[in-house]
Amino acid sequence: MYTFNARLSSADLGSTSDTPEVSPEASEQAFRQASQQGIAAGPLSDDLLDRMHRYWQAANYLCVGQIYLKDNPLLREPLLTAHIKPRLLGHWGTSAGQNFIYVHLNRLISEQRCEILYISGPGHGGPTLNACAWLEGSYSEVHPDITPDVHGMRALFRSFSTPGGIPSHCGPHTPNSMHEGGELGYSLVHAFGAVFDHPGLIAACVVGDGEAETCPLEGSWKSVRFLDPRRDGAVLPILHLNGYKISGPTLEARTENAALVDLYRGRGYEPIIVEGDDLPGMHQRFAAALDRCHAGIRDIQDRARRGEAPVGDAGRTDAVRWPMIILRSPKGWTGPKEVDGLPVEGTFRAHQVPLAGVNENPAHLAQLEAWMRSYAPEALFDRDGALIEPLRALTPPAKLRMGAIPYANGGRLLTALEMPEFGDYALEVPGPGRVIAEAPRKLGEFLRDIMRRNPRNFRVFGPDETNSNRLNAVFEASDRTAFGPTLPIDDHISAGGRVMEVLSEHLCEGWLEGYLLTGRHGMWSTYEAFAQVVDSMVTQHAKWLQQCREFAWRRPLASLNVLLTSHAWRNDHNGFSHQSTGFVDNVLQRRADVVRVYYPPDSNCLVNVFDHCLRSRNYVNVVTVGKQPDFQWLTFEAALEHCSRGASAWDFASSDGDGEPDVVLACAGDVPTTEAVAASWLLQKHVPGIRVRVVNVVDLGVLASPEARPHGMDHQSFEALFTQDVPVIFAYHGSTWIIHSMVHGRANEARFHVRGFADYGTTTTPFDMVVLNRMSRYHLAIDALRHVPRLRSSASDASDFFSAQLRRHDAYIREHFEDMPEIRNWRWTDDFSESDTPPPLAKGHPRAQTFSDA
Amino acid sequence: MYTFNARLSSADLGSTSDTPEVSPEASEQAFRQASQQGIAAGPLSDDLLDRMHRYWQAANYLCVGQIYLKDNPLLREPLLTAHIKPRLLGHWGTSAGQNFIYVHLNRLISEQRCEILYISGPGHGGPTLNACAWLEGSYSEVHPDITPDVHGMRALFRSFSTPGGIPSHCGPHTPNSMHEGGELGYSLVHAFGAVFDHPGLIAACVVGDGEAETCPLEGSWKSVRFLDPRRDGAVLPILHLNGYKISGPTLEARTENAALVDLYRGRGYEPIIVEGDDLPGMHQRFAAALDRCHAGIRDIQDRARRGEAPVGDAGRTDAVRWPMIILRSPKGWTGPKEVDGLPVEGTFRAHQVPLAGVNENPAHLAQLEAWMRSYAPEALFDRDGALIEPLRALTPPAKLRMGAIPYANGGRLLTALEMPEFGDYALEVPGPGRVIAEAPRKLGEFLRDIMRRNPRNFRVFGPDETNSNRLNAVFEASDRTAFGPTLPIDDHISAGGRVMEVLSEHLCEGWLEGYLLTGRHGMWSTYEAFAQVVDSMVTQHAKWLQQCREFAWRRPLASLNVLLTSHAWRNDHNGFSHQSTGFVDNVLQRRADVVRVYYPPDSNCLVNVFDHCLRSRNYVNVVTVGKQPDFQWLTFEAALEHCSRGASAWDFASSDGDGEPDVVLACAGDVPTTEAVAASWLLQKHVPGIRVRVVNVVDLGVLASPEARPHGMDHQSFEALFTQDVPVIFAYHGSTWIIHSMVHGRANEARFHVRGFADYGTTTTPFDMVVLNRMSRYHLAIDALRHVPRLRSSASDASDFFSAQLRRHDAYIREHFEDMPEIRNWRWTDDFSESDTPPPLAKGHPRAQTFSDA
Repeated sequence: MYTFNARLSSADLGSTSDTPEVSPEASEQAFRQASQQGIAAGPLSDDLLDRMHRYWQAANYLCVGQIYLKDNPLLREPLLTAHIKPRLLGHWGTSAGQNFIYVHLNRLISEQRCEILYISGPGHGGPTLNACAWLEGSYSEVHPDITPDVHGMRALFRSFSTPGGIPSHCGPHTPNSMHEGGELGYSLVHAFGAVFDHPGLIAACVVGDGEAETCPLEGSWKSVRFLDPRRDGAVLPILHLNGYKISGPTLEARTENAALVDLYRGRGYEPIIVEGDDLPGMHQRFAAALDRCHAGIRDIQDRARRGEAPVGDAGRTDAVRWPMIILRSPKGWTGPKEVDGLPVEGTFRAHQVPLAGVNENPAHLAQLEAWMRSYAPEALFDRDGALIEPLRALTPPAKLRMGAIPYANGGRLLTALEMPEFGDYALEVPGPGRVIAEAPRKLGEFLRDIMRRNPRNFRVFGPDETNSNRLNAVFEASDRTAFGPTLPIDDHISAGGRVMEVLSEHLCEGWLEGYLLTGRHGMWSTYEAFAQVVDSMVTQHAKWLQQCREFAWRRPLASLNVLLTSHAWRNDHNGFSHQSTGFVDNVLQRRADVVRVYYPPDSNCLVNVFDHCLRSRNYVNVVTVGKQPDFQWLTFEAALEHCSRGASAWDFASSDGDGEPDVVLACAGDVPTTEAVAASWLLQKHVPGIRVRVVNVVDLGVLASPEARPHGMDHQSFEALFTQDVPVIFAYHGSTWIIHSMVHGRANEARFHVRGFADYGTTTTPFDMVVLNRMSRYHLAIDALRHVPRLRSSASDASDFFSAQLRRHDAYIREHFEDMPEIRNWRWTDDFSESDTPPPLAKGHPRAQTFSDA
Repeated sequence: MYTFNARLSSADLGSTSDTPEVSPEASEQAFRQASQQGIAAGPLSDDLLDRMHRYWQAANYLCVGQIYLKDNPLLREPLLTAHIKPRLLGHWGTSAGQNFIYVHLNRLISEQRCEILYISGPGHGGPTLNACAWLEGSYSEVHPDITPDVHGMRALFRSFSTPGGIPSHCGPHTPNSMHEGGELGYSLVHAFGAVFDHPGLIAACVVGDGEAETCPLEGSWKSVRFLDPRRDGAVLPILHLNGYKISGPTLEARTENAALVDLYRGRGYEPIIVEGDDLPGMHQRFAAALDRCHAGIRDIQDRARRGEAPVGDAGRTDAVRWPMIILRSPKGWTGPKEVDGLPVEGTFRAHQVPLAGVNENPAHLAQLEAWMRSYAPEALFDRDGALIEPLRALTPPAKLRMGAIPYANGGRLLTALEMPEFGDYALEVPGPGRVIAEAPRKLGEFLRDIMRRNPRNFRVFGPDETNSNRLNAVFEASDRTAFGPTLPIDDHISAGGRVMEVLSEHLCEGWLEGYLLTGRHGMWSTYEAFAQVVDSMVTQHAKWLQQCREFAWRRPLASLNVLLTSHAWRNDHNGFSHQSTGFVDNVLQRRADVVRVYYPPDSNCLVNVFDHCLRSRNYVNVVTVGKQPDFQWLTFEAALEHCSRGASAWDFASSDGDGEPDVVLACAGDVPTTEAVAASWLLQKHVPGIRVRVVNVVDLGVLASPEARPHGMDHQSFEALFTQDVPVIFAYHGSTWIIHSMVHGRANEARFHVRGFADYGTTTTPFDMVVLNRMSRYHLAIDALRHVPRLRSSASDASDFFSAQLRRHDAYIREHFEDMPEIRNWRWTDDFSESDTPPPLAKGHPRAQTFSDA
């Protein structure tokens, strides 16, 4: 086991060169002793230490001001209730600890001239990021109304947690935040996403001990095993144990250091523990710890980049332990020790507003004033209210300020992908439904060539399903990322691999988010049902995108592309648990200007859609298409036109000529498309003279009224497709309500009869719902006849036949475990003759692999 | 640090009494040596070992049969393609390993007479559970058509992954499964939920190494810290490292044992590693490991229950390390070593169907036959096809069989809660809107008394928000569960505490699911926005409930109750990230017979709704209500009637007399209710003579047509409430599409104009959407006037006034950070006079606490 030199003793403080061999346990012991003795020796000179301490106090002052003050920001007058906000909101608990870390990182940046991205994990970290960005000047640069003086300070205070203002969490408004910080658990996975392919970057990721209890955070630690120190940057986790959540203690704060050391070593880190509340001892120890971590990171990277063992040695990234810091400091540090006789600093009572009711309680008002004056604002800020020069000098060089580095505003780093000509990935389709193919295969080739042309800023993520999802062509461009020793049996795995597979939807989504947020491109693919595991993460990312539109200085990001391949309709064998279409339901809750939902019906449409998605900016694009061999409908040219319209009538499957149809069979999704086309075939065969129109929808958003979604199709075009009053039987991949909601406001909306996922199938066990999906064509045909008055009686024979077929099929599949021949061998035929074999695989289409069909 | 005696050396095999002092590292070393040398000594006699081995082979045989055979189940004829299923589905990879564990657990149960619940974590573990339940007879007991003979064997094979049959995952059809196993990640959290308050139970939880990569699984390990050995049972995790997922290796399989030992010790476990593929050595070592684990568990429990240190010592559950097993065995163990010249056993190629194309490839067919015959079925099953007697004798005593213990069919253990009289939790409401109160406070008292009356089968879970959610009365009945040393400063924390708080929605939901699935009652509360973190888990639980309805022998379970208190409308201060209403969208995708959604508008309705929820069975109940002080509308009696109807007109707020209204103002949700009532007040004040009807909906499902949801209100009642054609302005708590979808099929559905969450607010930043929620009344009033033709012109003054008020309010709150006085002080008045103070707190209503308002 190779480990960076994390060993540190109290004797070693102040020196970074000559390190005695001390075990980490002894090091920790020394830290604790140093803490207890208040030892102040360390890497910081007296002057530097004094100024850093005061800079910290300035940040702390600003945090208190944000929570309490609407006026008198510098306390140049005695504090009155008129200066206090009517509602006291915000969270003091995490503020001072994070300010402490921020100030120390500034020192490291200034000394080492390194690029550090600050990621704030703890909940309600907004005040810290606002305060520190304001102090370093980056806040005013993007918010010119928040000037770096007393007026700006007042405006900052007034904007915090007030109407039209800024939230208590970090978010896009503050230039030193790279993500939406409101929902806990994603800081660490975003940190790793940020440093992939950014070899010069260190993401300093502060993990709160509340956040540390979430499952996504716990599962993120293993990301370190996927790091390649040769090409990737580093994450420096700073686990901040301040002891309490809202009202209870935190698990890791109540865990002995020895067990924490076991745990984090087992996870691949070498923790340094800095613990206490003594000053200036904590400053010296934390500065020493940071120096040691920085040196450790550089040591690992330098060795790897020089080609030395062990990194690069058969991909043994497990053989490295990366540095991290465990910081134990009091919750609400430097705040009121006691309020109304109850202890506050260091307890859960410091979580939010430690002095409540300030407007009604003169004693609390006085205590607040005393607390704020304890930071000596008059000695921190000059006459204009700007930070005094000796403290301003601590600010890192302008471009390295954590609120100014481009990684925190990734769009500044974004370059367009080098895209191959997408027409090269056309599948030859001799006629509608004349060949079958696995739709994602051509996409795999497309992604392979994108990966080749963009070797440093494009990655593909997924839960071990790249092969299974028929995207395996990408392995011709790159291997899977190795996370441990490789074996001869392994398939396309190496330390340099760029296809990132881990059986965790959270990590796939989170890594990709971090990668995109720092200016790169990518996609991930997964089971449709299990995409819902990250409903909440996608929501937060979409909220980030939505809010970023308010800030012109937030440059556009590449879209988040999610490919749902093993979809609900084709999980018959896996069973009911694998059948859910709700990911799209959730995504569609977000505002229309950040969300796009696509249902390409075949391979050529899929390539078209993906080309569009990869060129788009600031969207969440969800693309759903099956991976099983299925009918191919459109030539590449037809697909291009169809996709650019978003929806169009398919003439080959329609019989309405130039006139008004009897019924519109609409469809969105590959299985519903096949079923709708087959239903049209059945109707035309069995009800001569029927006028059917088949409309396929590939871009779901066009269904909505333009008043509801700017992306919606204009009413004239909509009615040209769907008519004004003809019944529409809509075969939809997902929940019926999505379509009902989409067509709300369209002419005669009650005529839309949606057959969605849950509505298909008629038999008793849920498991059947999908096995029987090839029965949907009969249901659709019966529905169509029921809703066309002119045919209701004349076509009753056909209707009876379809019902009989339903019953026959149901019995047949239970006996033979496959579809009836007339369904198994069905294909589109212009003369409505029956076929006795299904169509062949498309020309040049690879055979399915044997071992990866999960 | 106290630890159970996990030390084991090769010399120790075969003896369980006299254990030499050997370090775990040495123990592991000894295991590995023993493995390499094929040592067969151990606790199993030759005879027992031989029979256990053959029992295992029988289980393996049955797994292969499920995947491949539709006929000739015992290979009494030469194998022909006619015997092979047309589609080969299922997963061999995990089967033999899990069979191995199952057989060994049977031995432990038989010898120790202990109750063990098997929880199958690895994906696609269905074949194992089916096979083992069939062998022990429990399968046939619940599925009489699957007889314990050759006919039943054939029927079992034919049902596996075929239409109308059973899925490839464990699920409710198999009596030894306690949960839906399709979505990976929840086995361990369910295991802990199962053993809380079941002191005699051991949940043997097999965690697959694929599953081990998921975040929910990783975050579940810490559950052990919440276990109280005095009152709870034990979880025995068996981490099964078989090396590969679908096509890539697994992270933990590629992690050195030393690092795994660090990791799991840090997590609170003492791992025993059993590794290899040598036989019978693996049997002996695994048996010894199980014996040691069992003894270790009993030792911890006995000491704790005798009151000995360290458990119970100030709640120091962190001072115990619980036993676990890490089993490294080959993927696809005992299957084909090679296929077509490529290695299969022990590789990712064994994941699914190791011999593909058997129907087309005679060599594969022959290899399949040889493989199946290698288990010697003729020596395992008698002439009838039943397991031969010497092997049947290994089956545990009937009631202890893992497919027969009631824990796996928790409804058998369910007893109704002792409920206090819910009328005792009435809030005195002197008139509609005359007092304000925090709705959850009375619910807290109700839960407190339920907890007191049901000290062993009711728990409350939440992410550290019990206090914040105003449920703190429960702490009068029980503390929070301690997970480490307690400090004097701690608030209501002790080892015996039964209120379970952890900052993880996954654990809250998962523990509760496990607790309910094993026959108990409970609820959890959380932020509405972050409930979406567990969208996917709730989906799987609802699917379990839905499928259980197919099996009468699956006894009803207590409903899963989720209280969403910090809801989207009241998270102004926390910001946009905290505002999302999508949890209900997701839940409503499930079938109506397993889902109920409630929006109680006040405290008395909340108590009524919760009383109903806690008495209900087999539902997911989602109850959304705010925790902030808000208007109280209904007396307890009125609330009881209102809730039992699900929706009713509120006469006090209506002005339609006995006639048809001009407009219906409908509302669901507490904030929308206030706004709708206020809108009615505004309309009546400013548009004299207007006929408004206010309809409040508390049980959302009643809106749906009875054809769509059996729970829906009949059309006559619906039209009595909403009329047939009067415009309805519907103020809804969540997404508009829910209401549109619900009212689909009702008379003139296009007249429903829904104002949902995203539609409220008019200004630029998303953060405003909620701060401005008190502006919604004006929007609703304007909408109402716009949709009533008879008023459109005559009421234009009123409409202009409302618009002007909207603009005034928008400016006012940005200056003063609170609502305009006429909104701040508004209350319902019968004479439409304005009020200059808001109503008082309800009588006896406790004041909000200072420190827990997060």
